[in-house]
Amino acid sequence: MTPASLANLIDALRVLPGVGPKSAARMAYHLLQRDRTGAARLAAGLAAALDNLRSCARCNNYSEAEVCDNCADPRRDPRLLCVVEMPVDLNRMEETHAYKGLYFVLMGRLSPLDGVGPREIGLDRLLRRAQDGVTEEVILATNFTVEGEATAHYLGELLKAKGLKVTRMARGLPAGGELEHVDAMTVAQAFLDRKPI
Amino acid sequence: MTPASLANLIDALRVLPGVGPKSAARMAYHLLQRDRTGAARLAAGLAAALDNLRSCARCNNYSEAEVCDNCADPRRDPRLLCVVEMPVDLNRMEETHAYKGLYFVLMGRLSPLDGVGPREIGLDRLLRRAQDGVTEEVILATNFTVEGEATAHYLGELLKAKGLKVTRMARGLPAGGELEHVDAMTVAQAFLDRKPI
Repeated sequence: MTPASLANLIDALRVLPGVGPKSAARMAYHLLQRDRTGAARLAAGLAAALDNLRSCARCNNYSEAEVCDNCADPRRDPRLLCVVEMPVDLNRMEETHAYKGLYFVLMGRLSPLDGVGPREIGLDRLLRRAQDGVTEEVILATNFTVEGEATAHYLGELLKAKGLKVTRMARGLPAGGELEHVDAMTVAQAFLDRKPI
Repeated sequence: MTPASLANLIDALRVLPGVGPKSAARMAYHLLQRDRTGAARLAAGLAAALDNLRSCARCNNYSEAEVCDNCADPRRDPRLLCVVEMPVDLNRMEETHAYKGLYFVLMGRLSPLDGVGPREIGLDRLLRRAQDGVTEEVILATNFTVEGEATAHYLGELLKAKGLKVTRMARGLPAGGELEHVDAMTVAQAFLDRKPI
């Protein structure tokens, strides 16, 4: 009863994360019935992204050029290299306006259980990148999750062995954080990393 | 920091129902990072569906031809016309192998609060279709929800006024239904519609 091109579309929508057969069917009917313009825009957007996007040769982030705008910006401090897991993390760092150095985006984190090892997240590329002779400090800004911490630890050892200065983002109470409402682990860390004033 | 074609893709993914900015970004990164083949298949699937699918001139269901396979099948009984809300409902009817007539798919239901009136669900097309001179009985198989019931009532009045025999799917206990575990409304309906044995 279902025409081939409809069945194909429903099947193709299942490549989206978290979309099972029922949501895929709902999405297909929604697009065909209510938003054909949107569907055409999505098809074009996918095709354009696949055609135009590649990894920046320096920072590994998505880029339309060989080297992305950020890496090509002469106003950034090339002595600082901040390592983040994903592009969203880079965006969050940029929102702070506190960092003016360069980045390397791992596009993941070490996760041996999921089969993500050093090769999958391109650590050899990071090592080459960090040893460009200009980089002086590598700031590890992977997440403070179990996997992010393990990734930072592993990277730290490798980079220090190459004679680079390696730092890690500070742990502590969040801005506006009240001891009563912050988890005990964070409070403990804030205590251990206390600073003289 | 986000290249234009990536920003466009994230924006375009938001045409999907239930997808906000965060899920859209997650989907985009997933496709680009892990499933470029799937993304290409989705782009092609969308384009092909938009190109190939139209409404069957007889039943209003999605079809690649002017008249769909079902409506063109000479083995189906043209005296019976079953009205359903959506293609999934038609598929469920077909799974029963109990019905051998033809269909009309409303592609919706009357829902005045959402601005869906008789014109939006193409009731004039259904009326013309039902008065083809061959149809003898119209079976209303809209859902037993408030909106589905209202739609059936409205359709029933219109179709009866044209001299057609109109029936409604039976209400009652589901197969395997135990009185203890079925809601009171359904049990009441099953009692009221009891049949001599």
